[in-house]
Amino acid sequence: MKRDTEQNGETRGLVIVNTGDGKGKTTAALGLMMRAWGREMKVGMVQFIKNEKRRTGELEAAERIGIEWHGSGDGWTWKKTDLQSAEDRALQGWEVARERIACSGYDVLILDEFTYPLHFGWLDVKEVINWLRENKPAALHLVITGRYAPSELIEYADLVTEMREIKHPLSAQGIGAQAGIEY
Amino acid sequence: MKRDTEQNGETRGLVIVNTGDGKGKTTAALGLMMRAWGREMKVGMVQFIKNEKRRTGELEAAERIGIEWHGSGDGWTWKKTDLQSAEDRALQGWEVARERIACSGYDVLILDEFTYPLHFGWLDVKEVINWLRENKPAALHLVITGRYAPSELIEYADLVTEMREIKHPLSAQGIGAQAGIEY
Repeated sequence: MKRDTEQNGETRGLVIVNTGDGKGKTTAALGLMMRAWGREMKVGMVQFIKNEKRRTGELEAAERIGIEWHGSGDGWTWKKTDLQSAEDRALQGWEVARERIACSGYDVLILDEFTYPLHFGWLDVKEVINWLRENKPAALHLVITGRYAPSELIEYADLVTEMREIKHPLSAQGIGAQAGIEY
Repeated sequence: MKRDTEQNGETRGLVIVNTGDGKGKTTAALGLMMRAWGREMKVGMVQFIKNEKRRTGELEAAERIGIEWHGSGDGWTWKKTDLQSAEDRALQGWEVARERIACSGYDVLILDEFTYPLHFGWLDVKEVINWLRENKPAALHLVITGRYAPSELIEYADLVTEMREIKHPLSAQGIGAQAGIEY
């Protein structure tokens, strides 16, 4: 079951980017994680921004089925005073990610909201991509999510999807984020 | 944990549509399913087009964690000769879906690729939406995926996202669909 391809090509680890201002970037990465887990592939998550301490539905699910999950620490609130610590967490997350990419034998690894440290310049996008070119195992599928994907990342990626908001209940009808749906 | 909301609103079952020509429509629905399952919500899937007999990664995962899954029968190949049976399957799928929506106590139900029977006129979109307005439990989150979402469906929905293809390896580099990633 594992590691076959539909057409007669070899298995090739894709770099997948889910970007845009709409919903579904992280959610689609979670779906891919579920799909790959169903194939008994080794899957993992490194979150760069979201709060590890917050008990999201996806974290509950991952723990219940034994998926390795690295959170980003204590969250990120977009307040100016948090910028330094957000940067520190991003750098620490990138250290974790590099180890997991290069040494941990994953089939699929999600770098959730990894576009933000690149977009804000906390990590140099060229250095990151050069490191990936040299160190990412050929068969590893890497999924990167977040708004503002830098053009260099889009160029490097194999599959890029923009999630575009057509209609959103928060803006349209004032409905708050709901557990199990948005987190 | 279950059924709280982040803001002080009540829980309100959303109608969510993932449409567009890009990847991630079904995948984001799977992610939402995983997230809701992590919250111990009752989640289910009705597939209108995809092949039940094909052992996808998502089907394997759903069986492993006990998510109810209704497949559409024997697949759909877009060949002209299959149109009648595809239509039959869609009608049968809609019967299953109606029972699950109205009577089965789901918190989250996915109608995967349900836009196609609407788009092709196998089901009347106005009748479907009228039926949903009268019969969908207020707290049920309904997720509908597929290209060509009819304008009436978009109008009825609370949250609509377009997945837009920016770059795709099948077209760009001739890489075939890979197990665990695309199915």
